[in-house]
Amino acid sequence: MSAPQCIRALLFDVFGTLVDWRGSIAREARELLSPRGICVDWEAFADAWRGEYQPSMEQVRSGRIPFSKLDDLHRRNLDIVLERLALGTNRVDEATRTELNLAWHRLDAWPDVAPGLALLRKRFRLAPCSNGNISLIADLARRNGFVWDAILGAEFARDYKPKPVVYLSSAAAFDCKPEQAMMVAAHSSDLAAAAAAGLRTAFVARPDEYGRGTGESRAGVSVDVSVSSLTELAHRLGCDESP
Amino acid sequence: MSAPQCIRALLFDVFGTLVDWRGSIAREARELLSPRGICVDWEAFADAWRGEYQPSMEQVRSGRIPFSKLDDLHRRNLDIVLERLALGTNRVDEATRTELNLAWHRLDAWPDVAPGLALLRKRFRLAPCSNGNISLIADLARRNGFVWDAILGAEFARDYKPKPVVYLSSAAAFDCKPEQAMMVAAHSSDLAAAAAAGLRTAFVARPDEYGRGTGESRAGVSVDVSVSSLTELAHRLGCDESP
Repeated sequence: MSAPQCIRALLFDVFGTLVDWRGSIAREARELLSPRGICVDWEAFADAWRGEYQPSMEQVRSGRIPFSKLDDLHRRNLDIVLERLALGTNRVDEATRTELNLAWHRLDAWPDVAPGLALLRKRFRLAPCSNGNISLIADLARRNGFVWDAILGAEFARDYKPKPVVYLSSAAAFDCKPEQAMMVAAHSSDLAAAAAAGLRTAFVARPDEYGRGTGESRAGVSVDVSVSSLTELAHRLGCDESP
Repeated sequence: MSAPQCIRALLFDVFGTLVDWRGSIAREARELLSPRGICVDWEAFADAWRGEYQPSMEQVRSGRIPFSKLDDLHRRNLDIVLERLALGTNRVDEATRTELNLAWHRLDAWPDVAPGLALLRKRFRLAPCSNGNISLIADLARRNGFVWDAILGAEFARDYKPKPVVYLSSAAAFDCKPEQAMMVAAHSSDLAAAAAAGLRTAFVARPDEYGRGTGESRAGVSVDVSVSSLTELAHRLGCDESP
């Protein structure tokens, strides 16, 4: 498939789709906590922290709490996970919690992402449409060499995916009708919500997101294009390597 | 002055401070309208269009109309200016008006801006804090080689400068207290409002903004630093040329 003429912007999920949150959080947690004599399964620690992600955002989506940056939700969730491990502030003090929370700003990209975005940017406006807050996404961009036209998504919309306003306000910021924007994600639920809002969709397989062979290897919903890397997406959307 | 340790982000006014809106709009209007047999003073045309800028934003700031992108305000203002020149849709049709309105996406930067931003980005998070909408600012970035960490300002805040929320929400998006962010602008009124909101301020002289010798050559209010270019600002804030 080459890009339908009407597509003008690509919007990207970030956690899992562009960056390996699980391996990076496990690494960061180990580096910060093991010198304090804490020894746990670091991948399971990352999974437990991520496990609180949807419930915390649901409090915002449902209106039970006002919009809060994901950094703030991550911090509350970290406290929950540490308490569950019986790690009080005597074991993990406030400064360490603050520093550990910023681990989400230090996630590493899958290797195809920076070169794929560089190709895609020749033809499309590009923005993350993530639940991550702007400072977090900006730090990931610097760390991994992503070049965005803007940072859109949850903090811009003041609500969390999969609420339609997040996809629609991101498309509108680029002066796009919904069908002129394509959501790119490794998760069928994200793509289903984007499609329901009227966007085009591209699935990127990240089969190792939750550990080897545990992520989605194919889309569970109908999508416009399905690829295994962003460089493949660039090829499929007609972004060749010429300048 | 080297940068106070506390400054973590620089926020930039765009029209006049980073780009020559007057010369660029005059050029674009001439290129689009003179083939249609229209001959006016093109700098005066740019000034007239820009003259409607503050009154149109004041309708949003005062709450008389809901927040509208600057592109939409520019379009209404263009119609006002054309009507004043007795140029009806028989002389300037809808498609031409749409195209001319996008002239604001094709403004050229002052020559010091791209190299200055590249130096400043080594040490600070950088974002525009402009009244221009996101797509407009993103197009100016591509055209002129600006690299931003995020696009903040009016569309993000859903209100227009000099309302405090625009400065404060931009600083907060970068996890900065107001005093950790510095507003950079060529206009004393913008800097006065930023300072009143608690931000640090840098004045950049653009004495030719409205034609030779007509812009502000020095700040009319107290500022933290005053320079004549962004490369000078980089030097004053301790961003040397080493990597």
